[in-house]
Amino acid sequence: MATMVGVTANPGTGNENAPQPACLVGVTGSIGLSGNVNGMVYTAFSYDLAKCVAEKILGGSASDQDISDVVAELTNMITGNLKSQLCDSGFNCSLSIPSVVRGDDIQVSAKTASVSVRNDYTIEDCPGNLVVQAFAAVEH
Amino acid sequence: MATMVGVTANPGTGNENAPQPACLVGVTGSIGLSGNVNGMVYTAFSYDLAKCVAEKILGGSASDQDISDVVAELTNMITGNLKSQLCDSGFNCSLSIPSVVRGDDIQVSAKTASVSVRNDYTIEDCPGNLVVQAFAAVEH
Repeated sequence: MATMVGVTANPGTGNENAPQPACLVGVTGSIGLSGNVNGMVYTAFSYDLAKCVAEKILGGSASDQDISDVVAELTNMITGNLKSQLCDSGFNCSLSIPSVVRGDDIQVSAKTASVSVRNDYTIEDCPGNLVVQAFAAVEH
Repeated sequence: MATMVGVTANPGTGNENAPQPACLVGVTGSIGLSGNVNGMVYTAFSYDLAKCVAEKILGGSASDQDISDVVAELTNMITGNLKSQLCDSGFNCSLSIPSVVRGDDIQVSAKTASVSVRNDYTIEDCPGNLVVQAFAAVEH
């Protein structure tokens, strides 16, 4: 966020045992992980947050397509960062392309995931919130 | 479908250049692909179809959780089959775990995908339909 948008993201306390299904609202990016760790990462930007962040990045008004593109790119960066940290910890994995899901009442679950973690973020100078929900199964 | 449910799936004519975003309704499985081909596969079962298929497999009434589990497993089989065909064509890739998204008006897109293909299926003896939407970017 500091690099792309020039603002700070403030994390919540996080939940290392997040309930399934997770309920998400707004513009949600998703990326699959495969390798020593298999999983799916969802980044749910509330509509007002997605619009605010996109307009900060683009420096003007943002269309729905612009907003989806920004969410896809931020999802790529967030998940790429997670991938680096996983690799550093010995869990090599590769990423799929980002896709974007829009909807007001999206419930996501992944039964085969032994790991379900979630954290909420607020973004400086923007309304709404960002929910990052990750599901993973670790190969032994 | 013939193996798991004992019924035939009848494909539509397909669309090799499917518009984005794709609008999906019901219980949708998704799996990421990464490797020589990077992408995301969505399998959207309408609610009545998902329930019908789950009850055929389980041999009785199916809870929402049962239905999600069946959709995840069918998504795994559908995408696993696609992966085999891609590997046979020289496009090696690995799969993420399946996750399931529920919602009445889900719009999915993947801007970085150069390939967007879709086909609709009806399932013998079941109402509703199945939409399979795949996004992919091919590495050269």
